[in-house]
Amino acid sequence: MTDESMAALAFRRARRDDLEAIVGLLANDPLGSTREDIGPAMNPRYGEAFAAIDRDPNQLLVVAESAGAVIGCLQLSFIPGLSRLGMWRGQIEGVRVAGDRRGEGVGRALFAWAIDACRRRGCGLVQLTTDKSRPDAHRFYEALGFRASHEGYKLPL
Amino acid sequence: MTDESMAALAFRRARRDDLEAIVGLLANDPLGSTREDIGPAMNPRYGEAFAAIDRDPNQLLVVAESAGAVIGCLQLSFIPGLSRLGMWRGQIEGVRVAGDRRGEGVGRALFAWAIDACRRRGCGLVQLTTDKSRPDAHRFYEALGFRASHEGYKLPL
Repeated sequence: MTDESMAALAFRRARRDDLEAIVGLLANDPLGSTREDIGPAMNPRYGEAFAAIDRDPNQLLVVAESAGAVIGCLQLSFIPGLSRLGMWRGQIEGVRVAGDRRGEGVGRALFAWAIDACRRRGCGLVQLTTDKSRPDAHRFYEALGFRASHEGYKLPL
Repeated sequence: MTDESMAALAFRRARRDDLEAIVGLLANDPLGSTREDIGPAMNPRYGEAFAAIDRDPNQLLVVAESAGAVIGCLQLSFIPGLSRLGMWRGQIEGVRVAGDRRGEGVGRALFAWAIDACRRRGCGLVQLTTDKSRPDAHRFYEALGFRASHEGYKLPL
């Protein structure tokens, strides 16, 4: 990433009018494309989900913005817990960078911002799970210092 | 588990006066024993963490009770998200059953209760991570229908 494009990159809390762009990012992905609905009208379930995230003080939906366009996103959840002396955890979910902006360091800068946000909230740990079919993501997280110490189990209801 | 001991088992939201028993359960574990503080006086950080969990409507700390004693626990987090059409997730953390009550089906009954609680809250998925050094836990979750589809990454801060 050049100094110029770095300077143009900003991270901030998502607003309701970013929602269409964020859903577009979620869908533009091998796994996401089968899971999301990007029909001509916004599925109202996304609006309800945005409202639930936005009113919860322990959720923070973040966008990366460049020249007025949303080019990346992730969701942070701050989770209180008793384990490890009552340690808070920061959890990261729904990470995406626009297809035409990959390889520029946007994801790395977005993660640096998110990890710092976890520190400011007093978290002792940042955690995330990533599908075993995403080897590029695994390399990315390992380069950031994350360790795959856990199995991530899911049960659809 | 006999019909008699099943009948005596109850699951409920944890109260402040369960805290000492819950911390005891968290510490009575190969990994937990190195992480928790069960000195003669309760470390005040546990009380602060309990208060943070208790006041958050998207957190539910659950205990299994038998004959007036806390013999198991887990924490449920209900997490709103945009992915998968705005699907809520139920996340399970801090699962313990008292050492002298293992093998009786307490964990299985506690999980059935927790999964049902996720369903009642409208979650589309239940998720958890478990340390790769816990093969018994892996067998337990797989028998319940969970699939280890994800890598669980952690970064200590």
